[in-house]
This record gives sequence, C-alpha cells and structure tokens, in this order.
Amino acid sequence: MSPRIAPNDPRRLFGIRLRQLRQGKGLSQEALAYDSGIARSYVGDVERGVRNIALLNICRLAATLGEPPSALLDFRRKT
Amino acid sequence: MSPRIAPNDPRRLFGIRLRQLRQGKGLSQEALAYDSGIARSYVGDVERGVRNIALLNICRLAATLGEPPSALLDFRRKT
Repeated sequence: MSPRIAPNDPRRLFGIRLRQLRQGKGLSQEALAYDSGIARSYVGDVERGVRNIALLNICRLAATLGEPPSALLDFRRKT
Repeated sequence: MSPRIAPNDPRRLFGIRLRQLRQGKGLSQEALAYDSGIARSYVGDVERGVRNIALLNICRLAATLGEPPSALLDFRRKT
C-alpha cells in the first residue's frame, strides 16, 4: 500500500508491536477494533504500518489490551 | 483553548509529560521544536494538551529529547 514507508519507520514498528500484543491476548482484529470503538479496517492499516496513528487512538487500543499506553511504543519488547 | 478536554485526557497527560521531559533537559520550546522539525506553536499546543499528536511527531520529539518514544507515554513517571 505504501512502499515508501521504510521497515524501521515508527509506523511499521508500531504495527508490529500492536499485532504482537493483540495476538498475545488472543484477540482478533475485529474484537480489538470493536472494543476500542475503532474501524476494523483502520486497525488493519495500523498493523500493516501504513497509518500515522494519533495519541487518543493509541490510548484506546492500549486500554482494550489492558496495557499502559507506553507498552505500545515499546517497540523492542517481546511481551 | 479547549475547556472540554478533561484534566485526565491523554492529550493533557502527554503535554504535562512532554514539558517535564523538555524542562528536565534544559531545552526551550523553541529549541525542542526546531531540532524536531516541528512548529514552535504546535509544540506549545501539545504541551497545553490541546493537540492529538500522532506517532511520527511523538517519535521526532522523543529522538530530540534522547528518550525512547515510550518515555513520552509514561504519564506517571517523574523522570
């Protein structure tokens, strides 16, 4: 979708981190999106690293995941 | 500017955290903004908690501050 976005771009790293946390909780994209009040397609775009997600949505996703918002920007962590 | 934004809104908490980290480094808003490639007025708005800042700008500010991006969302930390 956006080949110009480099692999180490924060949008990519955030998407990888979000997917990791979501799957770790056993949640589908649909469930995460619905419980966060965000469109499923938007969550899919974020996980693919093509969206510059803003603070309020970061915090909504974190709340649904039961994580502090900082956990979603902790790009190097595995859990 | 936006009285509808509650004190515990993530935008407010982020602004407080950003100011705390910026002042801890002895940086002016001007210096932080300039080094991050962001308008000074925008950084001022963010610190006042009236902007829904997005991921790329969060990471730009964190890089200028010499902090990991997660530090800016660590709203409870003092340093």
